[in-house]
Amino acid sequence: MRKLLALSSALVLGMTAMVSANDGLKGLIDDPNQWAIQTGDYSNQRYSTLDQINKDNVGNLQVAWTFSTGVLRGHEGSPPVIGNVMYVHTPFPNIVYALDLANDGKIIWKYEPKQDPDVIPVMCCDTVNRGVAYADGKIFLHQADTKLVALDAETGAEVWSVMNGDAAIGETNTATVLPVGDKVIVGISGGEFGVRGHVTAYSIADGSQVWRAYSMGPDSDILVDPEKTTHLGKPVGADSGTNTWEGDQWKIGGGTTWGWYSYDPDENLVYYGTGNPSTWNPAQRPGDNRWSMTIMARDADTGIAKWFYQMTPHDEWDFDGINEMILTEQEIDGVERKLLTHFDRNGLGYTLDRVTGELLVAEKFDPAVNWTTGVDMDPDSSTYGRPAVVAEYSTEQNGEDVNSTGICPAALGTKDQQPAAYSPQTELFYVPTNHVCMDYEPFRVSYTAGQPYVGATLAMYPAPDSHGGMGNFIAWNGKTGQIEWSLPEQFSVWSGALATAGNVVFYGTLEGYLKAVDATTGEELYKFKTPSGIIGNVMTYTYDGKQYIGILSGVGGWAGIGLAAGLTNPNDGLGAVGGYAALSDYTALGGQLTVFALPN
Amino acid sequence: MRKLLALSSALVLGMTAMVSANDGLKGLIDDPNQWAIQTGDYSNQRYSTLDQINKDNVGNLQVAWTFSTGVLRGHEGSPPVIGNVMYVHTPFPNIVYALDLANDGKIIWKYEPKQDPDVIPVMCCDTVNRGVAYADGKIFLHQADTKLVALDAETGAEVWSVMNGDAAIGETNTATVLPVGDKVIVGISGGEFGVRGHVTAYSIADGSQVWRAYSMGPDSDILVDPEKTTHLGKPVGADSGTNTWEGDQWKIGGGTTWGWYSYDPDENLVYYGTGNPSTWNPAQRPGDNRWSMTIMARDADTGIAKWFYQMTPHDEWDFDGINEMILTEQEIDGVERKLLTHFDRNGLGYTLDRVTGELLVAEKFDPAVNWTTGVDMDPDSSTYGRPAVVAEYSTEQNGEDVNSTGICPAALGTKDQQPAAYSPQTELFYVPTNHVCMDYEPFRVSYTAGQPYVGATLAMYPAPDSHGGMGNFIAWNGKTGQIEWSLPEQFSVWSGALATAGNVVFYGTLEGYLKAVDATTGEELYKFKTPSGIIGNVMTYTYDGKQYIGILSGVGGWAGIGLAAGLTNPNDGLGAVGGYAALSDYTALGGQLTVFALPN
Ligand SMILES: O=C(O)c1cc(C(=O)O)c2c(n1)C(=O)C(=O)c1cc(C(=O)O)[nH]c1-2
Ligand SMILES: O=C(O)c1cc(C(=O)O)c2c(n1)C(=O)C(=O)c1cc(C(=O)O)[nH]c1-2
Repeated sequence: MRKLLALSSALVLGMTAMVSANDGLKGLIDDPNQWAIQTGDYSNQRYSTLDQINKDNVGNLQVAWTFSTGVLRGHEGSPPVIGNVMYVHTPFPNIVYALDLANDGKIIWKYEPKQDPDVIPVMCCDTVNRGVAYADGKIFLHQADTKLVALDAETGAEVWSVMNGDAAIGETNTATVLPVGDKVIVGISGGEFGVRGHVTAYSIADGSQVWRAYSMGPDSDILVDPEKTTHLGKPVGADSGTNTWEGDQWKIGGGTTWGWYSYDPDENLVYYGTGNPSTWNPAQRPGDNRWSMTIMARDADTGIAKWFYQMTPHDEWDFDGINEMILTEQEIDGVERKLLTHFDRNGLGYTLDRVTGELLVAEKFDPAVNWTTGVDMDPDSSTYGRPAVVAEYSTEQNGEDVNSTGICPAALGTKDQQPAAYSPQTELFYVPTNHVCMDYEPFRVSYTAGQPYVGATLAMYPAPDSHGGMGNFIAWNGKTGQIEWSLPEQFSVWSGALATAGNVVFYGTLEGYLKAVDATTGEELYKFKTPSGIIGNVMTYTYDGKQYIGILSGVGGWAGIGLAAGLTNPNDGLGAVGGYAALSDYTALGGQLTVFALPN
Repeated sequence: MRKLLALSSALVLGMTAMVSANDGLKGLIDDPNQWAIQTGDYSNQRYSTLDQINKDNVGNLQVAWTFSTGVLRGHEGSPPVIGNVMYVHTPFPNIVYALDLANDGKIIWKYEPKQDPDVIPVMCCDTVNRGVAYADGKIFLHQADTKLVALDAETGAEVWSVMNGDAAIGETNTATVLPVGDKVIVGISGGEFGVRGHVTAYSIADGSQVWRAYSMGPDSDILVDPEKTTHLGKPVGADSGTNTWEGDQWKIGGGTTWGWYSYDPDENLVYYGTGNPSTWNPAQRPGDNRWSMTIMARDADTGIAKWFYQMTPHDEWDFDGINEMILTEQEIDGVERKLLTHFDRNGLGYTLDRVTGELLVAEKFDPAVNWTTGVDMDPDSSTYGRPAVVAEYSTEQNGEDVNSTGICPAALGTKDQQPAAYSPQTELFYVPTNHVCMDYEPFRVSYTAGQPYVGATLAMYPAPDSHGGMGNFIAWNGKTGQIEWSLPEQFSVWSGALATAGNVVFYGTLEGYLKAVDATTGEELYKFKTPSGIIGNVMTYTYDGKQYIGILSGVGGWAGIGLAAGLTNPNDGLGAVGGYAALSDYTALGGQLTVFALPN
């Protein structure tokens, strides 16, 4: 605890007393001087009330210090700051460094797991990791091989560890974990290997398992109350996790849970989305494939689902529904409502009532989206809540071994894992997006445990008849479902955004720029070329009263897989290699933290 | 040539006409806006007449842009700038990038050799490379596996290549090459593998071999004229390269040539030093072991030696004599003389007349040096020019299997490859030094081609009874042989220095700091923590009228071998692992270029 003395004494007391692990963490999250959680806060707003750096002075930003992680390939996530210590993680092999902010980032401790490199080929989209979490004096690392480790935050010593999955059957991890109360909530990857997705809660104290909820399967597996758990306002009924599947396909049904988690403490609900159903060949899995592609609201203590909303029934494009749920309070039609906004891979920006699961808005957040004409918003309609699929772009209707061309967005969606930010000041969402379309040819594939179970060949390219680039950074009004402004980018914006009370929004680009724009107008105020392409998320904190901005560089992720894994065949990397080939003209592999500040 | 349009038209004309490759390069070297050669100029002064950044404003320096090389481990050397293009190289696998300065470092071309990784274990001291050279529209890369490649500077296409050595017998390369006239001068590494050192001149036009001079062997191999080539003013006589060796030991005699080369165009002499005799066990090679540990002056066109000076006859400590020769014109005793100053691994700073080879000064540049009481400067003495060895620290006299303790400096010398700078303004040399001592236990070893041929066990530690650190950055008066000031550093200063007309001297530290100090007083004016430990050499150039400072980060080299190669046994890395173990508290592996400038 010595390292935390810089915290206000109230906080220190709170943490020492440790009535509940959550109380301490909540205090840290509420303190804008810390970056206590990957998502900025439990609401996933990635909004900081710090305003020393503001739209008038951000143009003077300078690099304050830097740190090389010693690992190449894609660096997602961000480094939490607790007190005077910053916790930097790396992609596989998932090293964790505790850096002393009082001493130019001197290394207080380093934790280097010994992981079997056999896990690398079963990671679909680079060896990324979205960062560590903090609670109760512990740092939580969820390794690529699904080992969940709790480290003493002060010493780096292992307190406990538990295996969450089995890499031999394709279960891996890239996500961070969400500490809630006395538990950490943990997801799983492997949708391209026929993994059946699950979310698990472990005890912060000792790592024992508290509950596990699968994305599909019997009611006892998916933790629903058939009468009380709702979908669009109606009870899901018995066997909802199996009765939209043919035979045992649900057992290898995908719906993995590798995205971002949010939490509403008042409702005690955890929110997250599930991924694509396996395989990518829709003909092999008739039915709606519930509960893949679904927003889920679950009780944090029991795991029992309060409501579901399946965005893309019977996916035909790999539009994983795992993107973050951003929780806001906004007025709609004169009523202050507890909202959940979600920018889905499928290209629709959804706003729901997060208490009831009522669907309020579903609009395209990229005009290029063409696979659907939109969502049926009529509660009395038999297709209520379902997107209307355009036959030309239906890989199911076109059939196996037919190349469906010109589908927008591409499989990596109008937005992938790169998290958006929300500013309560402007009431706008700032969304890093992909502006990419694809050709998609499904083919029959058979399942072998631990082997790729994809069943489609893809090609990707910039959205045609547009600005020629592969991305936009947009401001979105979640209540009206409208784009306020859109900044064209040459490549997908694969980095997470940060909004601040200084009326500035930050994001990174795949070429390696950190950019700052005016939160109201989108005007570019600052840019700096960091060592490598950015797929990390911008964070902010103060040290000694001064505001800093931090970002990890290190090109990779699905978009950067060509560079990261050294692939050159255009169809490799599930089609991303060809699409993003020009990236190698701008940047090379890296793994660096760059920290910015205003001049003294 | 399009890329070079920013050069003055006179230069462009000169280069297009290309009367001699050297004329074009000399013009570029004389233009301070370029960084046309690794060593700053042919004199190895590493002095720039640029003075936009000066001692009054250097404190405002900012990071302008950065570039990750995509490779980890030790990054030595620096990136040449020719016109608007910067050429960045990497350690093994020795990638070369041409970066567009007009476009934030966009990659114009990338050259990635395919090298057999089997060369890595036959590199003694990390997989470093000291950078590419430019001449005649070509970029010269001397790869780890000793392949010398000429690339079209504009396209990166291979123009020609030639193998300079054979990695199967331990011949490798880490050095840059020296373009002189219509030739490139090329050295070899492998003193720890019983390689017999040689220097070779290849035609710039087509890579054909012009001459090769071995460090030891018959007169025809070592390119001497027994009557005209002198040692301390006297002809070397016949068989000087074999008659101080027992039997055939000279055939595996070491004296490799992996350091920096300098050139005096008026004398047409190339200067360099030779490394340690093999093995490190002195008992196995009675005699002076000529011409290991020798400063050599050779005619650039024929390779014939004009003079030699052997600094450490019969080495007992691995004090390779390869450090750079810095050529200056200074007044001594009222006479303007053409001097050569050299800071040797053995801890002595030498000044010689570079035309005649006359020894003028030989003084300790670290007071900790204890293996010698000094050099006999009496021309009439029978031991003229020889260092007097202190018996206690003589590993020869103490004998095989005896641990000689407390020898200063350690095997990596008071200075290793890290090059010093010289300012004609202050007439001072700025020397990055090691402040490290050692225990050294020689043992009998037998030679097997391609296998380590070391024969000694070492331990290293900071110089006792001093400031506790392992390095100093010093200012040295080469005429008097005195230290003007000395800045203590926690670790050896393994980075090359740069002196500028702004009265500023720059250097990097193993923790990763770039530092700027007042050239007159040594006062620290600026420091910045770059991503990784610095063993590269600081360079400067202008783009669009603005002065920039560039430095490669990436910890490694012999000092950083523990981190670079992941070694933890203290005796590993020839004793460096234990000595520099604390480095891992400060930095991790990296490979980044950081470019600095004043604010706009
Ligand atoms: O289905 C899965 O289990 C799964 C896992 C992951 C992952 O763990 O990174 C990605 C995806 N799918 C995926 O579809 C995807 O677009 C993707 C992008 C990235 C990334 O980090 O850039 N990961 C993943
Ligand atoms: O004898 C040789 O051939 C040889 C080669 C090298 C090299 O090529 O780097 C080094 C050394 N010796 C050596 O003695 C030494 O101290 C050293 C340091 C370094 C470095 O780059 O940090 N290389 C070498």
